Amino acid sequence: MKDGPKPLITSPHNPYVKDAARLRDRRHREKQGRILIDGARELRRAMDAGVRLVEVFVCEPLCSSGDAQRLLVALAHSGCEVLPVNEGVFQKLAFGQRAEGMLGVAETPRPTLSSLALPENALVAVLEGVEKPGNVGAVLRSADAAGVSAVMVADGRTDLYNPNAIRASLGTIFTMPLCEAAGGEVLEHLRRRKCSLVAARVDGAVPYTAVDYRGPTAIVLGSEAAGLSSLWCSDDIQTVCLPMLGAADSLNVSVTAAVLFYEALRQRNAATT
Amino acid sequence: MKDGPKPLITSPHNPYVKDAARLRDRRHREKQGRILIDGARELRRAMDAGVRLVEVFVCEPLCSSGDAQRLLVALAHSGCEVLPVNEGVFQKLAFGQRAEGMLGVAETPRPTLSSLALPENALVAVLEGVEKPGNVGAVLRSADAAGVSAVMVADGRTDLYNPNAIRASLGTIFTMPLCEAAGGEVLEHLRRRKCSLVAARVDGAVPYTAVDYRGPTAIVLGSEAAGLSSLWCSDDIQTVCLPMLGAADSLNVSVTAAVLFYEALRQRNAATT
Repeated sequence: MKDGPKPLITSPHNPYVKDAARLRDRRHREKQGRILIDGARELRRAMDAGVRLVEVFVCEPLCSSGDAQRLLVALAHSGCEVLPVNEGVFQKLAFGQRAEGMLGVAETPRPTLSSLALPENALVAVLEGVEKPGNVGAVLRSADAAGVSAVMVADGRTDLYNPNAIRASLGTIFTMPLCEAAGGEVLEHLRRRKCSLVAARVDGAVPYTAVDYRGPTAIVLGSEAAGLSSLWCSDDIQTVCLPMLGAADSLNVSVTAAVLFYEALRQRNAATT
Repeated sequence: MKDGPKPLITSPHNPYVKDAARLRDRRHREKQGRILIDGARELRRAMDAGVRLVEVFVCEPLCSSGDAQRLLVALAHSGCEVLPVNEGVFQKLAFGQRAEGMLGVAETPRPTLSSLALPENALVAVLEGVEKPGNVGAVLRSADAAGVSAVMVADGRTDLYNPNAIRASLGTIFTMPLCEAAGGEVLEHLRRRKCSLVAARVDGAVPYTAVDYRGPTAIVLGSEAAGLSSLWCSDDIQTVCLPMLGAADSLNVSVTAAVLFYEALRQRNAATT
């Protein structure tokens, strides 16, 4: 299909468009083994990470950003199918307010625990049972910034590559070393790697600043509603809490995560200077 | 109007219901000088903070939570008008997924800079030009948890008591000492109070951990899109950044805020032990 530019798609009933629009629905993503990636920055990060793009819908009049222009050039060289669409069709496919004129269909990445390469002195984040895709994405964005080595999603209650997760992660869901696995497997893996296990709990035994994060460490976070399961109650797991000095009794999981990640980074930087 | 229980409102065309539903719209909030407060916890915090409730719509079958039951008792003693509505009417009024069966109309609080009582060794957060109400609410929630003394919204580009701000704050928007003022006034006020001024910028001069937050300090945060205005560029303002070690080049403002607030708290706690 690489013989010249494709004709402009102007009908929302075009079969490519209809197939792609179905991928907003989780069941269809699971059935087709494909996901939607909206936005030039997100597509760029997916490409760079080796995610296989099946096709990219492009609405040229909306592709004004530098990111979009650079991606158009890269796509032309990649062999990925580029399908030009008009604005009406693009609005049917895109979601959110940002309309950057580019939306891709990609094969669902299947990162596994065993394929995850961890550095010697890893700082791992474990997310157990987080329900909201937006929270998963926000934790990934913070983990990326704070230099976390990998994120392990244990017993995930959402599909990992939900559009909201991709968007909230700013595409770092593709660049961040990541896997999904059963909680028991994750725990066993971390024990074998001799990671210190630090679990954030509202009723944690010590303040999070009282723990040493300088060696290999896994920071374990649960859902806001249910907290962590009993799997993460064990003598070799240190529970920590954030001081809660106000009227509310909980923090957003992505905020808790960021405070812990950056405290670990602070200690690690202080140790090397 | 305190003579016995009111009759059940079953029509969405009831004038009380119509007036309240209009308050979802910013223009109507500004015109009427009233806001909507959805949720038992949020209403409780508003009441405790002295916000004047005009009326509360109650859908009894949805009021199963302990919070809701306790609030019903408190309302009965408060003199606030309680209007029973059926589920259909309640759905018209409520927003979001949480349907806790209680939604109030309140007079818009008008907290001013001059009425804000700051403690001796204040830790102040300044938010300049933050556009998304959800971000304002999320910063308030983190500020509440980390024991921030007050939040000053400078040159706000959103209406402070937007329903999304109230919800994201979990109602701490009412309990947190708070004001809205022009940026210049906020800056002058902080200088008069001899606060150290610390501004978070992507290109900040030093890492945020290199600054001493133990004395009176104001942490200044801008919008994700535009950053801080030139008002906050001055020799007496220390700019700081968070290390960004990954693929993305920014953090959510509420995440940046939480990391800074908790670093300040860590330093202050370390100083007293």
